[in-house]
Amino acid sequence: MKFRVDINCDLGESYGAFKVGSDEKIMPHITSANIACGFHAGDPTAMMQTVKLAKKHDVAVGAHPGYPDLLGFGRREIQLTTEEIRNYTIYQISALQGFAKAAGVSLQHVKPHGALYNTAVKDANVSKAIAKAVKALNPELIIFAPPESALAKVAVKTGLRAAHEVFADRAYNSDGSLVSRKQPNAIIQEPKQVLERVAKMIKEKMVIAVNGETVNLGEVHTICVHGDTLTAVELVTTLKKGLIKAGIAVKPVSSFV
Amino acid sequence: MKFRVDINCDLGESYGAFKVGSDEKIMPHITSANIACGFHAGDPTAMMQTVKLAKKHDVAVGAHPGYPDLLGFGRREIQLTTEEIRNYTIYQISALQGFAKAAGVSLQHVKPHGALYNTAVKDANVSKAIAKAVKALNPELIIFAPPESALAKVAVKTGLRAAHEVFADRAYNSDGSLVSRKQPNAIIQEPKQVLERVAKMIKEKMVIAVNGETVNLGEVHTICVHGDTLTAVELVTTLKKGLIKAGIAVKPVSSFV
Amino acid sequence: MKFRVDINCDLGESYGAFKVGSDEKIMPHITSANIACGFHAGDPTAMMQTVKLAKKHDVAVGAHPGYPDLLGFGRREIQLTTEEIRNYTIYQISALQGFAKAAGVSLQHVKPHGALYNTAVKDANVSKAIAKAVKALNPELIIFAPPESALAKVAVKTGLRAAHEVFADRAYNSDGSLVSRKQPNAIIQEPKQVLERVAKMIKEKMVIAVNGETVNLGEVHTICVHGDTLTAVELVTTLKKGLIKAGIAVKPVSSFV
Amino acid sequence: MKFRVDINCDLGESYGAFKVGSDEKIMPHITSANIACGFHAGDPTAMMQTVKLAKKHDVAVGAHPGYPDLLGFGRREIQLTTEEIRNYTIYQISALQGFAKAAGVSLQHVKPHGALYNTAVKDANVSKAIAKAVKALNPELIIFAPPESALAKVAVKTGLRAAHEVFADRAYNSDGSLVSRKQPNAIIQEPKQVLERVAKMIKEKMVIAVNGETVNLGEVHTICVHGDTLTAVELVTTLKKGLIKAGIAVKPVSSFV
Repeated sequence: MKFRVDINCDLGESYGAFKVGSDEKIMPHITSANIACGFHAGDPTAMMQTVKLAKKHDVAVGAHPGYPDLLGFGRREIQLTTEEIRNYTIYQISALQGFAKAAGVSLQHVKPHGALYNTAVKDANVSKAIAKAVKALNPELIIFAPPESALAKVAVKTGLRAAHEVFADRAYNSDGSLVSRKQPNAIIQEPKQVLERVAKMIKEKMVIAVNGETVNLGEVHTICVHGDTLTAVELVTTLKKGLIKAGIAVKPVSSFV
Repeated sequence: MKFRVDINCDLGESYGAFKVGSDEKIMPHITSANIACGFHAGDPTAMMQTVKLAKKHDVAVGAHPGYPDLLGFGRREIQLTTEEIRNYTIYQISALQGFAKAAGVSLQHVKPHGALYNTAVKDANVSKAIAKAVKALNPELIIFAPPESALAKVAVKTGLRAAHEVFADRAYNSDGSLVSRKQPNAIIQEPKQVLERVAKMIKEKMVIAVNGETVNLGEVHTICVHGDTLTAVELVTTLKKGLIKAGIAVKPVSSFV
Repeated sequence: MKFRVDINCDLGESYGAFKVGSDEKIMPHITSANIACGFHAGDPTAMMQTVKLAKKHDVAVGAHPGYPDLLGFGRREIQLTTEEIRNYTIYQISALQGFAKAAGVSLQHVKPHGALYNTAVKDANVSKAIAKAVKALNPELIIFAPPESALAKVAVKTGLRAAHEVFADRAYNSDGSLVSRKQPNAIIQEPKQVLERVAKMIKEKMVIAVNGETVNLGEVHTICVHGDTLTAVELVTTLKKGLIKAGIAVKPVSSFV
Repeated sequence: MKFRVDINCDLGESYGAFKVGSDEKIMPHITSANIACGFHAGDPTAMMQTVKLAKKHDVAVGAHPGYPDLLGFGRREIQLTTEEIRNYTIYQISALQGFAKAAGVSLQHVKPHGALYNTAVKDANVSKAIAKAVKALNPELIIFAPPESALAKVAVKTGLRAAHEVFADRAYNSDGSLVSRKQPNAIIQEPKQVLERVAKMIKEKMVIAVNGETVNLGEVHTICVHGDTLTAVELVTTLKKGLIKAGIAVKPVSSFV
């Protein structure tokens, strides 16, 4: 097929008795799993189980490092130094790397989580700290980042591969940023509408922003779907089937980036 | 030389602004560093700094995994399942492995910390959980354990190397266990006396217990010194010089185990 | 009415984005809420919300202190000193007391959580540490404890009131202890069966153990129901209605202990 | 005496085996202790011991709530909602209130710690969240805040007393803010110079900024000294003696604010 894309989802977000998400139902339908590493969510047992579950379904495994803020689920910005960000990123990726080793799989990618992702997208120094951490551990690891973001650019400058990521169920502003979740129109829930948007993003390399303007996205490599909503499983199955039907192969990003 | 021994010390135990130990003063005088991995002590920045400090002084690096209990410094037993112990051990060793990778050094060994060490020494199931974790990550890693302990035996059965560890400044019971710190005679503070005992342990493979009986230790590979006392630096320098003078080479355990 | 009983449930167990339980559905049907205090579960915002929810439904509020082990949900025993237990208990009760003050309600009781409860039930020294903490803060607070347990006895000796607690949906051994959850017959799920057992406990002061023997319970003051199962809401509504129909008033324990 | 001032210090900052500061040496020389409450530093046992130590030396006790960031010692700003700040503040003050109750002393004041202090000083919404928490718990509690700060103003508007705080050993900018610790001239170390500056602050209600301009401070109520430096004990004893000699009574702020 001419077109191909990866579908990624944040998984392994349980923490001890605190169970999160529907990992077992989502995993069969995605191609890359972003696995929490214990700072904002996830614990060693959840990491081991999620890596094994990914392996079972031939899903590529990636680290999902976040701020050290379990209480805030990594969604609150913390004023860290770049040295702290680099070291926290090394710590988290490496911890997951151990479970991958134990399960006999390789890490494919790194995707910063929540507020760390949002900060890195805009801040080249934060991006550099993350890219340095990744490079020091394994220069084959792919960084997930929005097209044209500081994170995508810094990754490439650092000698790493960047996978351009779009969000399946989120509305976009005309500058390419996501509409804030505080806005009523931030989330697109109807699976068919999501499918149409995503197919357009991949084939036409653009998305229509909330103000009607066209946002050029360039090459799109991976689509983020959310696993924590009731309709997540329905959405991701519709999306995957629909993309294939539309002539877009769905496979792990490492196979084509 | 006919005799040789390794000197190990627990280091990297600071946590953020909570500074512990005299790592910079101790490091030049030891041959193996047990580095805390963030569960009972240590944080990513402390781990990075301690690995670099060890590299600078040609000190071999090992992981020092503990119970997830920062408040108790890993000194309080927690009733964990063996699956939890295995996963917590994988997590901590792997996190340190990342900093070793980033600094360009290899991990040499694993030494469980505090209450986890004490439990593993007696409990073969806990030892198995630790040994499995180590083997899954890197079968070249050496496990530090008291001579004749469950941990030493299980390590060997699992196909790993065990380094027999003795404690430089601690009194022994006639069954080979350490005299509890709650006893007044638990600690031997006088450096010359420590040196004499240790030299005897290495050359004669035995130690005199508090009740006067002889405890056979077998081959002794590594001596644990403590870095958190005021006299630690004096003790370790006296010990190292004295051992060399007594015809005992002091070098990392991986070179002879 | 001649008979009366309190129905208690563990609530407020969410931690940040980690949502636990169906507090809003359970609260209208109980008379005492045991609110997690941040050590094994719960966070300041969950505590504030749960206290307000309890107030709205005229439910009495109690502290539910646990071991400092969020990862283990307070279900793993930790070897603490009695001084640590006393101080951790003071800390947790007091934190909740602040939210009660802010919401304009009084604390009614204290119920240790999980492994701390299980330890206190058997260990008089642990019970003393808890009772001392409670007495130092407010001697009007009632301690929830199984009939005849060390915790119940120590509470009374310390000059506090103890409310004798039974478990609605759990099978009993002939010594009055609960059948371990690891046993297949540990949980009684059928609401009518639960109701019959509980009514018998209150009126006849006894329960039939799994081996057919009679266990004398003495006066029963409060029934624990679980809020984290799918059928919890159905169970508690059936139980409350059924008890009232059976001539047993359902009201907060402070009104009759 | 015509002039009077309070001397406050951050104490109780140890966390388990991580020991911080020289509380026992500092306590006899101050009049108000700001006690860490477990979020950025401090633990239940440290809180109990510090409250008792304060009582022994007739030192007034205050809560020192911080961001939930033990790893960053509360020195890194975290983007919290005002609801979170209010609830975290209630939690921490109340926890300390319990130890005060157990020791038979009353809380005198609340002083936000580190980054929370710095944020509150500038941000009226954060100040309101803190002031609401304080008022809900005990409107007699005094808030420590720099003269003319948002925090001082909001405290008064909320119906609370504010104690105007200056820093004994810190240089000031001409806008009344502290010179950043990253600047070489941020700290004034010479005890006599510190004494002169402080006496001037109290008697003349002003300080000379680093650029030579005069900063009007208004009424000064309390002087912050640091307990974590080697020279802290010397500084505070020189300061206290010198102030008394200069005709300035040194006593807890509740006696005159």
